[in-house]
Amino acid sequence: MNPPPLVVMKFGGSSVASPDRMKNVARRIVAKKHEGNRCVVVVSAMGDTTDDLIDLSKKINPDPTEREMDLLMSAGEQISSALLAMALQAEGEKAAAFFAPQLGIRTDSVHTKARIVDIDGSRLQKEVGNGSIAVCAGFQGLDSENDITTLGRGGSDTTAVALAVALRADVCEIYTDVDGIYTSDPRIVPDARKIDRIYFDEMLELASLGAKVMMNRSIEVAKKYNVPLHVRSSLNNNSGSMIVPEEENPMMERPAVRAVAVDKDQARITATDLPDKPGVAAKIFGSLADANINVDMIVQSSSEQSAGKNDISFTVGSTDLKKAVDRLKAVAVELGGGHVVSGDDVAKVSIVGVGMRSHAGVAARMFQALAEAGINIEMISTSEIKVSCIIDRKQADEAMRRIHAVFEMGQPAFVAAR
Amino acid sequence: MNPPPLVVMKFGGSSVASPDRMKNVARRIVAKKHEGNRCVVVVSAMGDTTDDLIDLSKKINPDPTEREMDLLMSAGEQISSALLAMALQAEGEKAAAFFAPQLGIRTDSVHTKARIVDIDGSRLQKEVGNGSIAVCAGFQGLDSENDITTLGRGGSDTTAVALAVALRADVCEIYTDVDGIYTSDPRIVPDARKIDRIYFDEMLELASLGAKVMMNRSIEVAKKYNVPLHVRSSLNNNSGSMIVPEEENPMMERPAVRAVAVDKDQARITATDLPDKPGVAAKIFGSLADANINVDMIVQSSSEQSAGKNDISFTVGSTDLKKAVDRLKAVAVELGGGHVVSGDDVAKVSIVGVGMRSHAGVAARMFQALAEAGINIEMISTSEIKVSCIIDRKQADEAMRRIHAVFEMGQPAFVAAR
Repeated sequence: MNPPPLVVMKFGGSSVASPDRMKNVARRIVAKKHEGNRCVVVVSAMGDTTDDLIDLSKKINPDPTEREMDLLMSAGEQISSALLAMALQAEGEKAAAFFAPQLGIRTDSVHTKARIVDIDGSRLQKEVGNGSIAVCAGFQGLDSENDITTLGRGGSDTTAVALAVALRADVCEIYTDVDGIYTSDPRIVPDARKIDRIYFDEMLELASLGAKVMMNRSIEVAKKYNVPLHVRSSLNNNSGSMIVPEEENPMMERPAVRAVAVDKDQARITATDLPDKPGVAAKIFGSLADANINVDMIVQSSSEQSAGKNDISFTVGSTDLKKAVDRLKAVAVELGGGHVVSGDDVAKVSIVGVGMRSHAGVAARMFQALAEAGINIEMISTSEIKVSCIIDRKQADEAMRRIHAVFEMGQPAFVAAR
Repeated sequence: MNPPPLVVMKFGGSSVASPDRMKNVARRIVAKKHEGNRCVVVVSAMGDTTDDLIDLSKKINPDPTEREMDLLMSAGEQISSALLAMALQAEGEKAAAFFAPQLGIRTDSVHTKARIVDIDGSRLQKEVGNGSIAVCAGFQGLDSENDITTLGRGGSDTTAVALAVALRADVCEIYTDVDGIYTSDPRIVPDARKIDRIYFDEMLELASLGAKVMMNRSIEVAKKYNVPLHVRSSLNNNSGSMIVPEEENPMMERPAVRAVAVDKDQARITATDLPDKPGVAAKIFGSLADANINVDMIVQSSSEQSAGKNDISFTVGSTDLKKAVDRLKAVAVELGGGHVVSGDDVAKVSIVGVGMRSHAGVAARMFQALAEAGINIEMISTSEIKVSCIIDRKQADEAMRRIHAVFEMGQPAFVAAR
């Protein structure tokens, strides 16, 4: 006889922010177990715990070592895992909590953004084999020195996916405060529709384009090991969105455009009248990289003002704008010329879909929709499965709605551009 | 060349209750290091953290497993150790925090009151050998399953003493919110005097008789391994009280009475008219022991009412009174008779001193002092180095002052009854 299915269930900090919410989550887990599953639960720190700990540390030392930050922050998940196990016990279930020294998750020693190097799932296997529910502290691992490490933003998702891989789970369920992945942001696009199934590659693009449901890292791991993810609400029993490998679903609907996303935390910088000689771009972007500034889109063009000179425009995250401008001004002086202009008034609107590979004219339809709305496109970048445009931030919401409409994403099983 | 002296410094929760206090503690540690010491620091959870965590758990499960309680509570010390290491770094010192998986403290698996079975001090040795300050989370250890355990009440003191033993520290300093051990409670006895040196055995008695400065367990370990303890204030630089082995100080002053202590959390229970036959006491106290009720003094006498019957009186902690009475009533019925009377209105006043061994008449002087003040003694118990009396709780403070006066404990280097 096969063992019962093994489900990894991950709950974020808002789902366990209070004793009452934690009890709700516990009942949810018990129901899943009573459906005939073995359950491994991964939990984040309660509500604002992590931010509170960071604030406290700032009062004591504005620039502490990352090793000690990891030890500090990991306490948040340690607390929530212990409490959630207690909540399950209060429901009459056998449950035990596990934190880094017991989880078997070994990482490298890159504190605050460690990578998992090995997982020994034997203890958790034994625990669920005995009919108990294993509650795991997310976000954390142990390096070869037995020092606590943390896995970076979205780390609890990574924990859940990694444990699902190690334990050969049948599914990894990511519980969140939304019903799943949507064709667009429902607060901006009223007829945005929940997506039943989406491919890993599409989700990876969406995550880096402004959709905040999951972090890239966990999706990458799930993709690599073929672990289906189920993103669903912790507040209701609706089925959410399945994130699945492409090859396993040849019959799955492949619309040209799966979703439209917006990222409003974008800023644009232009350096004008730069000398037209080799090495200029390398110098500029090398300098920005040295300052840990991530540059997104880059456009180089002949100067509008001066013959034989170039303009270079690029986008950065809004929080990096000031640092990037300061760097760029210094570099421009070194390069002997040019002005730096910048604006914190742009947004990036993107469409994503693996169907684009086989459908021609998708980008053109997007540009046409923006043109008809009188929205000017400042920069464009494309990949095999996405098109992104930088536009005026004030027009971003309208752009989303126009694009959502033109690709008929609001239709159940929309078939635009098939 | 010998290595610099190694000092273990332990700070309690109130000493690190806020970022400002934590910074003060950090400066204190830095000063100690700059005096030419290697420093290992043990820290408790900040202020009310442990109580807050317990309260939170009660809202979720009033009766959680002890394993999960240990995982939960230990987070408090983990947080404070990380923050104190950061505070030391802010002072420009090299410092690193260590919690259970790195401390090398192995315990048995008796959760919430685990006993240390082994300490591997090599990692901490290496740390302080490199000129760094090692900040250790108190109160916690790891069992053979890598599960977190806690060491019970006063557990951080035990951690400090155990590390001092393992690291062959020159001294173990216990920082607290009082200046040291006093001849009596200064809030009750105005001329109570700080004791410069006190023997382990005396301190052990005092700790179990109501003096709340240190818990027994840590003193026992210090005594067993001959580690001198220095109990001192975290608020000033005054030297405190040294707790030392008896044999090492033959010239040390040996007053008959070192200190007088009071314990007001006492209750008295009497079962009257019990049958006078073998096994009655065994049945009563066996039943109380089964309920985990600690009985202190016991007096058996012939019944005042009925010939051929016995009365048994004993004391328990006030919190156990109701449980003890319920048990005792059931047992009395089984034994075929007797009434149970109880009172939560008594206190235990005790004098302690190794000098009693060689001084006759000490107990008599205590009884005389109480008699002169019109204070009735209800029960008496003695050991080689202490005398305890149960008296009316309302008269306890006056009893303390009278006893303190009669043995002239307020005199510098008092020599009463030599």
